[in-house]
Formats: sequence, structure tokens, C-alpha cells
Amino acid sequence: MIKWDSMIKDDDFIRHENVPLTKEEIRAISIGKLQLNGEDIVLDIGCGSGGMTVEMAKRCKFVYSVDISEDAINTTLKNLKKFNITNCKVIKGRAEDIIPKLNFNKVFIGGTKNIEEILNRLIEKNTGKIVANTIVLQNAVKILNYFEDRENYSVNIVNVVVSYGKKAGPGYMMLSKNPINIITIDKII
Amino acid sequence: MIKWDSMIKDDDFIRHENVPLTKEEIRAISIGKLQLNGEDIVLDIGCGSGGMTVEMAKRCKFVYSVDISEDAINTTLKNLKKFNITNCKVIKGRAEDIIPKLNFNKVFIGGTKNIEEILNRLIEKNTGKIVANTIVLQNAVKILNYFEDRENYSVNIVNVVVSYGKKAGPGYMMLSKNPINIITIDKII
Repeated sequence: MIKWDSMIKDDDFIRHENVPLTKEEIRAISIGKLQLNGEDIVLDIGCGSGGMTVEMAKRCKFVYSVDISEDAINTTLKNLKKFNITNCKVIKGRAEDIIPKLNFNKVFIGGTKNIEEILNRLIEKNTGKIVANTIVLQNAVKILNYFEDRENYSVNIVNVVVSYGKKAGPGYMMLSKNPINIITIDKII
Repeated sequence: MIKWDSMIKDDDFIRHENVPLTKEEIRAISIGKLQLNGEDIVLDIGCGSGGMTVEMAKRCKFVYSVDISEDAINTTLKNLKKFNITNCKVIKGRAEDIIPKLNFNKVFIGGTKNIEEILNRLIEKNTGKIVANTIVLQNAVKILNYFEDRENYSVNIVNVVVSYGKKAGPGYMMLSKNPINIITIDKII
């Protein structure tokens, strides 16, 4: 039986130095924002270690995972194998070049350099839902500004700071992870 | 088709003044920590508005929801009806009195006054997994201390601060919700 809502522990993913992983709590929130169902075909832009790829693939029909980094592609492939995910295609390249060739209905953006060009391509594809995580303030603002005058899209931003308790002598120290901006864009039908 | 990972928007829950609601992002993280599957029977202690009750019931076999407050019980019942949840029993009373009479394998604690007595009852029932949310520092410390010398339990604490972007004139203000401690207790088999 598939444990739909089991989140994989961060430590259970195969890692490669310098390839980022979306942390468990941020994955849980982002998956909630994506409102995934079994019919969804999701594009994962900047898949990194494949953390979101694996979690989304467990909960939807198919995932296309794109990254420009060879190390990221290889790490994602290793994690797909580890977690027995077969409903996923991993593509190395620039998302803005790949988007026009694929069919999907939802998008998760874990990281990217050319956010505005990517949003242009996604809008052309009539994408209904985009969830973008960004640690970079400028990217958050670019996304918000991009949709400022597009009245057929609703935009929602939350910022999440998670601190992990670490046992230290007489008690727990709360050690903070970096603040992550999670932006949800819905096309208004 | 059931949309397993669709999170209900906070605004869609029926509310009653002074009855708390676990917010969407905290629900998403807590559900992830509970590692829910379709066979789980979950006890929701301090169910409040029924936010977690409804989300858990969509993802597991059965939920028992307990609260001492008449307003909370009525609000939970209204939300169960609104979201067509039938695999749930709502019980008004003190959790510490009710726990011995029920069979369950996981527990979500959304709020409670007598945390140590409740933990005593849960340990007696050999509960395998407890996820407790608390905004009260003293309760977080009580839970951590309770399990300090119990070596057959693993304890994990995260603190989560979510800020919501609110459109204001030229941009978005990030308005912070209260920091929530999410403590996960696993019995080591």
C-alpha cells in the first residue's frame, strides 16, 4: 500500500555536495500548495537532489524534472531509483528551452536563474498552477511584480522559517534554517 | 477521486470566535510528521475547529476527535459535515479520561492543559507515534523533559514561523503568524 502522506526524511535522500535539497517541512507545505491529485502532470524546474520530484511523483501521474546541473541530474536519478519512482522523466537543460516541448498542468520551481523568461514560457503554455520556492529576495520580488498587472492570476506569498531542535548538554538549541519564500500562482478560470 | 494532498484553505473552514484553527502550513507539516496511511486510527486531542481532524480523516482510516470545549465540538462537527467526513467520532470531555477507552495507533495533540497526564495515558496505551503542536513554551519543555530519560522513544522538535504576504499599497508586507513548536515522538521498536 502506498503511504500517500509519508514524507521522506531529509537524511534518507542521497546527497551530492553543492546540490540543494528542499527540506521536509518546506516540501510538505509546497505539496499542499500544489493541491496535487492523481491526474496531475507536474514540471519540476531546478530539481536539485530530486526531493520534490520524488514526493510529487508519489502523489501525481507524472513528473518532468529539469535541471541545468549534471550533478543535480545524477543525484535526482539516484533518488528516483532509491525510492522506486518510475513515473518521472529527468531532463538536463535550460527550463526555458524545454518548457515548450512538454505537456503538464502544474509547475514547481525549486530554483532558477531566468525566472522572468521561464514565467513567459509558462504563461504561453497556459499553466494553471505554479508554486515557486525561492531563497533569493530579488527572485521573490520579480515573481510578484511579474503578476502585478495580470489580473487573471491570483498570487499568494508565504515566508517560512523552520528551526530544528538540536540536543546540546542540558537541553535543545533551536537552530534556524534559512527563510524560504513560497509563492503560489493560480490562473483564475 | 479523492485529492489526497489537497489542503483545505483556512478561509474555507467554518469558524467560531475563540476556537483555534491549525493553519494550513502547520497542518501540512504536521500531517507529514504523522506519516499517515490508510490503516491509521488517529486520536486528535484538542481538536479545536477540526482543521486537523478533517485533513487527517481524508488520509487515514478513522479519527477520534476530543475537546473539552462545547464550542470546539460544535465547530468540528460543522466542519466534518461541510467536508463530508464520516470516518470520525467527536467526543466532548477530558482527553485523559477518554484515552483509556479508545483504540488508536497515532495521536495528534493540537492543544491541552494536562500534557503530562495525557502523555502518561498515551504511554500506557503503547502509542507508537505522537505529534504535538504547542504555542506554549512551557508545554514544549514539559514534553521534551517527559521523554528525556525514556530511551525507547525518539523525540524531534521543530519550530515554525510562517509569515503571510499582504498586499499593501506598492507591495507586499510580510505579516508573521505565531511561532509553533511541532514535536514528534516515535516509539523505537
